[in-house]
Amino acid sequence: MHATPAYDNDNVFAKILRGELPAHKVYEDEATLAFMDIMPRAPGHVLVIPKTPCRNILDADQAVLSCVLATVQKVARAAKEAFSADGLTIQQFNESAGGQVVFHLHFHVIPRHAGVPMKPHTGDMAPSEELREQAERLRALIS
Amino acid sequence: MHATPAYDNDNVFAKILRGELPAHKVYEDEATLAFMDIMPRAPGHVLVIPKTPCRNILDADQAVLSCVLATVQKVARAAKEAFSADGLTIQQFNESAGGQVVFHLHFHVIPRHAGVPMKPHTGDMAPSEELREQAERLRALIS
Repeated sequence: MHATPAYDNDNVFAKILRGELPAHKVYEDEATLAFMDIMPRAPGHVLVIPKTPCRNILDADQAVLSCVLATVQKVARAAKEAFSADGLTIQQFNESAGGQVVFHLHFHVIPRHAGVPMKPHTGDMAPSEELREQAERLRALIS
Repeated sequence: MHATPAYDNDNVFAKILRGELPAHKVYEDEATLAFMDIMPRAPGHVLVIPKTPCRNILDADQAVLSCVLATVQKVARAAKEAFSADGLTIQQFNESAGGQVVFHLHFHVIPRHAGVPMKPHTGDMAPSEELREQAERLRALIS
């Protein structure tokens, strides 16, 4: 079996967790953090991560996964309402071949509207003011 | 808030759970079932579902989500080994606009190889013998 590479403490989500990089936070509890994706595939695109170090689903603790999914659900319900979404696409990538770019476990929660395809991965960053406003709408709805 | 439509007992996964339709089963426990996707986006593509009725992540019980994710992790680890995958893509679709086609909560676990894109959704079914053999390889590895 291929071993999962070790966790890298210098990935950008570890830096967000340590407060070394900013993020538009949507929700936070003891075990998880949710914040706006700065390169959204659709308006309202949120990332949910555990606070404990793990690379992806291959090395995650089961208890950590449970906490992350509880937050994914909270965010999904709020995003549906906040953005009047018709649906949501949830993605989770493992290793480069699986689509992973940042090597700290994360789930993408992407609000969708009928007939509107997801934006391609261009690497374009959304305006900070737009993300700030979206985060605020989500925060107001998450219990 | 848009209400989530009611669960439809006649969806194909409900029929698989009731034994009314066949499936190439990979893993089963009290709360969950994993089986081969008959229209795989890559070889070894597995679906993980809860045994209890729920439409998608919007109406799922938190405890059910925990059980489903534990099985997703088991399948992901086994699939990486069984198919010498370089990574895995995990997807979960909610409502038609989110990509959902069958309205019983399910997670896609898709083994990936570096440089090999996922096959498009053609609706083509994989040969049953191929799926049977893949399911067998996965079953042998799942604890």
